[in-house]
This record gives sequence, C-alpha cells and structure tokens, in this order.
Amino acid sequence: MMRGRLFGLGVGPGDPELITVKALRLLKAAPVVAYFVAKGKKGNAFGIIESHLDAAQTRLPLVYPVTTEALEPPLCYETIISAFYDEAALTISGHLEAGRDVAVICEGDPFFYGSYMYLHDRLAARFEAQVVPGVCSMLGGVAVLGVPLVYRNQSLSVLSGVLPEDELQQRLETADAAVIMKLGRNFEKVRRVLGKLGLDERALYVERATMSNQRIVPLDEVDPMASPYFSLLVVPGKKWRA
Amino acid sequence: MMRGRLFGLGVGPGDPELITVKALRLLKAAPVVAYFVAKGKKGNAFGIIESHLDAAQTRLPLVYPVTTEALEPPLCYETIISAFYDEAALTISGHLEAGRDVAVICEGDPFFYGSYMYLHDRLAARFEAQVVPGVCSMLGGVAVLGVPLVYRNQSLSVLSGVLPEDELQQRLETADAAVIMKLGRNFEKVRRVLGKLGLDERALYVERATMSNQRIVPLDEVDPMASPYFSLLVVPGKKWRA
Repeated sequence: MMRGRLFGLGVGPGDPELITVKALRLLKAAPVVAYFVAKGKKGNAFGIIESHLDAAQTRLPLVYPVTTEALEPPLCYETIISAFYDEAALTISGHLEAGRDVAVICEGDPFFYGSYMYLHDRLAARFEAQVVPGVCSMLGGVAVLGVPLVYRNQSLSVLSGVLPEDELQQRLETADAAVIMKLGRNFEKVRRVLGKLGLDERALYVERATMSNQRIVPLDEVDPMASPYFSLLVVPGKKWRA
Repeated sequence: MMRGRLFGLGVGPGDPELITVKALRLLKAAPVVAYFVAKGKKGNAFGIIESHLDAAQTRLPLVYPVTTEALEPPLCYETIISAFYDEAALTISGHLEAGRDVAVICEGDPFFYGSYMYLHDRLAARFEAQVVPGVCSMLGGVAVLGVPLVYRNQSLSVLSGVLPEDELQQRLETADAAVIMKLGRNFEKVRRVLGKLGLDERALYVERATMSNQRIVPLDEVDPMASPYFSLLVVPGKKWRA
C-alpha cells in the first residue's frame, strides 16, 4: 500500500481569498485536514478554509493543551507542548501509514513561526512532506496599512514582542525596517522602546490584518490591555524616492 | 466619470499556482495589466500570469531603461530610474483618469522590495490604490528547501547581498535566522562572510525557487559567476525541539 503524503498548507493571513490556488487545490483533495486550535475555539486557520471542505473529508483538530507559556511550577510549558506535538505527530502518522494524505492547514505561512514546523521536524524524515508557502501575516499587515515595507537594499528585522526590553531596543536601533509580532501583553513594553528610539512617529499598528474584524489604530490610542496576539507593529523603511 | 482604481497584485514567487485567489480574480477583471520588465525580456511576473489574460485586456509593459545600477558617469542610476518611474506613473494615471482600473502585477509581494512601491508612492495619494499581498520569494525558498525558517521567538534578518562586507558580517552575527537576497554578483562576498562566521554549514542556497528552472545547490558547489539575481541564501533558525 502507498503511504500517504504530509502537506503543510499556508492559508494566508485571514482573508479567505488570500489562500493560493495551489493550497486550495491540495486542501480540497486531502482526505484528512488537520489544524491546530485552542480548547473551545474553532481556530483561525480552520475558519479561513471551512467553506471549502466537503462532508467526506475528515476534520482532525489538534487541540493545544495549554493557552499560555507562563505556567506555575511544577508545570513546564516545554514538557507539555513537546508531549502534545509527539502525540499529534503520532495521530497523523497513523493516517499516513494507512495511505491517507494529511493536509495540515496553517494560518500565514507554515515555516514562518507556524506550529506545523514541529510536525514537519517529527515526520518529514519518514514520510513524503511538502510545504505550500502562504502569504504571511506581516505582508497582510503592510498591505492593509498601505505602506511599503522595505526599499532597495534596506534590511528588515522581524522581531517577537516577547524579547526582553534591552534586546528589543538593540535590534530596533540597527534596523532599517522592522516588524514586531506577538504583541498581546508585550504591547506596552514595545511601545516604550519605540518611544525611546523616536520610532513611535513612524510605527503603524494593526490588529487581525485582512480578517473581517481587522482594526487599524493610531499607536498612542492602543489599549495595551486589549491588544490581541494577532496584532502587528510595523516600522516601515524610509521612503526611497527614486 | 468614475476614476479607475490602482491595484498592486502580488503574484507569488514563480510557480503560477502560488498566486492567491484574490489576486487572480482582480487580475482577470482588470482592463489594463501593467508589469515591469527588462528590455528584450518577457518578464517573470508576466510569465506567471500570462495564461490567465484574455485578448480584450491591455498589456502595459513598463520597460526598465537600465539593467544595472552600476553606470559610468555622467550617467546616474538614481536620476534615470526616477524619471522612468515618473513616466510610468504618468502613463498609468492616464488610464486611471480615463476610468480604467490598472493592475500592476508584482513577482512575490508588492511591498517587499517590489518596484510597484515606486508607483504606489507616486499615485496612492491621488487615486484609490489597493495592494493584494503575495507569497514572497523568501517563503517560496524555504518551502522548497524543506526547512523551517524561524521558531518561536527567534528574530529574522532579511538582508541584501549588496550590503558592504563588514555590515553584512555585523548583521549576520546577531541574527537568529537570516535570508540574504539579491545575490548575483555578490555571492562570493556573502559566502566568505558566512564562512568567517561558521554559518556555511547551516546555510542553504536555492536559485529561482518554485520556478520551473529551480535549482538547489550545496553552498560550496555554487559557481559565483553564474549565481542569478533570483537566488537566495537561507540561514534557518536553530531547531527548537519542543
């Protein structure tokens, strides 16, 4: 019997039309469609593609056991999440060994901060695995903000809001252009650093870019307690007026 | 009369199936399809979407007046290219004022090192302009290399091979993960820097990722005189084994 193939399908940043023709074709052909999701939620990636599925396709939700990395000892995020990815990989390998292709759908791009990477690292040596790149959230963000991100030979730094304040500051100081992801509770810290560096005038903020509930808010009006995980800060490169 | 709208459509890194459903819809509906192209060439972006056009759509090639930034004085790249973008914007504004929508197709993503940015900067204040983000070449590259780019809270540096050797070295030294674009004649310099930093074991090289003539070559086998402009070096983030 032929073994199934693993697909990591980028489905784009939120607008269902921002899926690629290729990901859509492979999605519709997949007997098993797997997706990561928080407990009790439907999942952003699943919401993007749900309307394309038919009844014969198996939905395989992979439900995160935790919703935060900050756990009280003796609980340890790394241990718990590692066991979870092991188990998810085992479930998927069962389908693959039974000859069924599995499409893992990923918001944005699979290899750009996506959880699919942890399945790929566990399965790609044993099974045929193919990644279909997607439009990442960062590029969805600059598109709706209407601002070019990087000109000519400018360098771009993509940073996580989780970084310590001094590291964030160092990295932003030397960046020609920057995108800061994973804001959420880190928002106030990041805004403070941008202020220190005089970048707050240039920075732009967007929540849930390209999704139906997208919001663009001036930086000084953002409520730091209400900034969602799917928000972005962009420091666009200085305009190069050719 | 209604004025036309300007669209910057990302058409993805090369594989024609990596266009988004949205860009494809807007492309097919556009009375005028504009694209940048080198003299005597067909153009990569145009090649990606050509099969979708019908005879009624106006093709508007925007032919670069120069093919290199290194010109002999008194010629000056900035002056020549600036006049070229001015003229291209004028041509497009003629269509827009006559009520015709214009779709400018862009390889990869329009706001990620794309020439569309120079039209956007000239026209978006006067006309309705909408950007449809695309899959960028960097993510096309890591997809075909089969290697996750950035894990968890790793920082990503996107660099141009044009940068001076010492600046490249500084930026690579502090990067968790890096992508180096615009290689071409800069390849040997970049490989030397990777070697100095001990990153040559980790770095991966691909030419024309996702295109039909894609080539993946081990770093030490790349002929520096034959590396095309559309090649990428990737230093993936260290695997995070959750």
